[in-house]
Amino acid sequence: MPVHFSMKRKCPKTAARLGKLETGHGVIETPAFMPVGTQGTVKTMAAHDLEEMETGLILGNCYHLFLRPGMEIIARHGGLHGFMNWSGALLTDSGGFQIFSLGRLRKIDQYGVTFTSHIDGRMHFLTPERVTRLQNVIGADIAMVLDQCPPYPAQYEEVKAAVERTSLWAERCKKSHLRQDQALFAIVQGGIYEELRRQSARELVEMDFPGYAIGGLSVGEPKDLMYSTLQSTVPELPAAKVRYLMGVGSPDALLEGVKWGIDLFDCVLPTRIARNGRVMTSGGYLSIRNSVYAADLSPLDHDCSCYVCVNYSRAYIRHLLNAGEILGLRLTTYHNLYYISGLMKEIRTALAEDRFEQYYAKMNFKLNKMYGGM
Amino acid sequence: MPVHFSMKRKCPKTAARLGKLETGHGVIETPAFMPVGTQGTVKTMAAHDLEEMETGLILGNCYHLFLRPGMEIIARHGGLHGFMNWSGALLTDSGGFQIFSLGRLRKIDQYGVTFTSHIDGRMHFLTPERVTRLQNVIGADIAMVLDQCPPYPAQYEEVKAAVERTSLWAERCKKSHLRQDQALFAIVQGGIYEELRRQSARELVEMDFPGYAIGGLSVGEPKDLMYSTLQSTVPELPAAKVRYLMGVGSPDALLEGVKWGIDLFDCVLPTRIARNGRVMTSGGYLSIRNSVYAADLSPLDHDCSCYVCVNYSRAYIRHLLNAGEILGLRLTTYHNLYYISGLMKEIRTALAEDRFEQYYAKMNFKLNKMYGGM
Repeated sequence: MPVHFSMKRKCPKTAARLGKLETGHGVIETPAFMPVGTQGTVKTMAAHDLEEMETGLILGNCYHLFLRPGMEIIARHGGLHGFMNWSGALLTDSGGFQIFSLGRLRKIDQYGVTFTSHIDGRMHFLTPERVTRLQNVIGADIAMVLDQCPPYPAQYEEVKAAVERTSLWAERCKKSHLRQDQALFAIVQGGIYEELRRQSARELVEMDFPGYAIGGLSVGEPKDLMYSTLQSTVPELPAAKVRYLMGVGSPDALLEGVKWGIDLFDCVLPTRIARNGRVMTSGGYLSIRNSVYAADLSPLDHDCSCYVCVNYSRAYIRHLLNAGEILGLRLTTYHNLYYISGLMKEIRTALAEDRFEQYYAKMNFKLNKMYGGM
Repeated sequence: MPVHFSMKRKCPKTAARLGKLETGHGVIETPAFMPVGTQGTVKTMAAHDLEEMETGLILGNCYHLFLRPGMEIIARHGGLHGFMNWSGALLTDSGGFQIFSLGRLRKIDQYGVTFTSHIDGRMHFLTPERVTRLQNVIGADIAMVLDQCPPYPAQYEEVKAAVERTSLWAERCKKSHLRQDQALFAIVQGGIYEELRRQSARELVEMDFPGYAIGGLSVGEPKDLMYSTLQSTVPELPAAKVRYLMGVGSPDALLEGVKWGIDLFDCVLPTRIARNGRVMTSGGYLSIRNSVYAADLSPLDHDCSCYVCVNYSRAYIRHLLNAGEILGLRLTTYHNLYYISGLMKEIRTALAEDRFEQYYAKMNFKLNKMYGGM
């Protein structure tokens, strides 16, 4: 098996679990958050920055990397690990979500999807088989099937069609997936329709993948709908396999996802808001461009021991962002990723010490109050 | 003395010298290049990046820092060292050059200079006394006098007036400079007129500053005119004091400056061109965005052992720049500063081993061919 998941401990009161995911590039303690490096770099970060904060697994995106720099260049580097100089584990999303977000730029049929590049307007045709082969070349430890992700809101019939196509395509991806040292994960769709979620999960579980993602959530639906969907979907997935909730990175939603039995998360949120000057702290969001911080000598977060909080003041970071200095974006990004990494570590410790329920009771209200609005 | 310069060795055949500049924040081996951190950050770099490449002394700019974030905020951090978290030595330029570059935005008289901020259009009035006090607050190890830097080309009379005003202002700066733990350096002007350079140097040397800069060069004049001006100016400066050539950072000009007896240099060139994808290598400039590097697995420079060259390929760095990824700017900046730092170290080693003349003979033609055009 290219990756191996084992559950180390289960919360007796919730679906939360502590586990580890062994890969050819290190062992990931779960639950874990995976920073997003869409174009072969976690924006503003170098490899050693991520290593410092004990990041074991990061994401790339097949769709983006296929368009730029293209497969030949990545292949010449022996794959994405070599291209981006990352010795930890990698997961590539297929790009299904990105392609379906193109709207009028794409056309879909049973064979695959035709779309126009957002970079140069060139037409491309991708099939489940081709996306799988592309990911074989990229060579991440984990590849994802090409799925069809409907928007929110979407009618039942539209979502049902997407579920059926996602199952058919998952099978085609599985058949064309040849690389023994790479795992291929399936993606459960079904929008907010419990029945369709169950159908999707059952069909995919039937095919026996080494891991299952839940896609099509965090696409604009209210958070309670996301949570109720998780509640009905996760039990359909085999307990022995790793579970990955796609596109979720808000602290409150991470905690809630863990509670419902999720092991892996990814999201651009922490890095994207950082570049807009918004940082996560033990007291909630802080918009560092706000003039109240102009002469504030405090660190971004008093409770944080990251490189940024140990060395720089809010006033300095605000100055950097106001002056258009790139170091400002580095510092806010570093801090946000460190914050999320620390939150996941706290969650794992609570699980390891059999006190997740109490941790959840304490933190749920707090995180919801601080981060629930976003 | 807040800074102390001592000459360790002199080249028997040229004016080049090996020395060290002791400051309250470390000892700088000279000749040395100082990276520019105009707004309180060397663009894209964190403090630890600069420490890794043994950078001992960096620049800030009083004019820029006065406008943004303003003195109050810097004062609250105990000065620029604290504000930017830099434990090495700092030098602040007065901003004379920047103010005089504003063109129609400024008005000058015997008292000082009135100008309009390039940031928000507000009017400001700065005198030599005020610029000195601002730099006292900023608290760099070395402050610079407010000088008048004429453009190139400029008529003799205009340059003569600037020399005279620069001398008067230097005296006013010196009188108003109160901080015992900070050195104030003078700036020699005089354009390309030997007689005016000598006049400027003599007047300033008469006032006995702890260090002397040569300003008003590298402002558009041909390089041979810059070198002949150096040749006639440097001998006017006392051998026991440190000499700083402002605005020079091209490898060929650094070598030539050392030959004429310069100890310190600063320039935005290495960092600015880096952000445009232009890197310095042992084979000359390399424009990494060029499509010939699209699939090039080599490091930026085969002869370089910097973090970037050890870990990343040209193809990857080109991809980052093409995709608008900030890491690309970090990597090219890091490499260029490392390259210049390495060149200065080579020069110091040649001086230490009494073979600068041979080193110059070998490298002068090569560096001129590679970098002389820019």
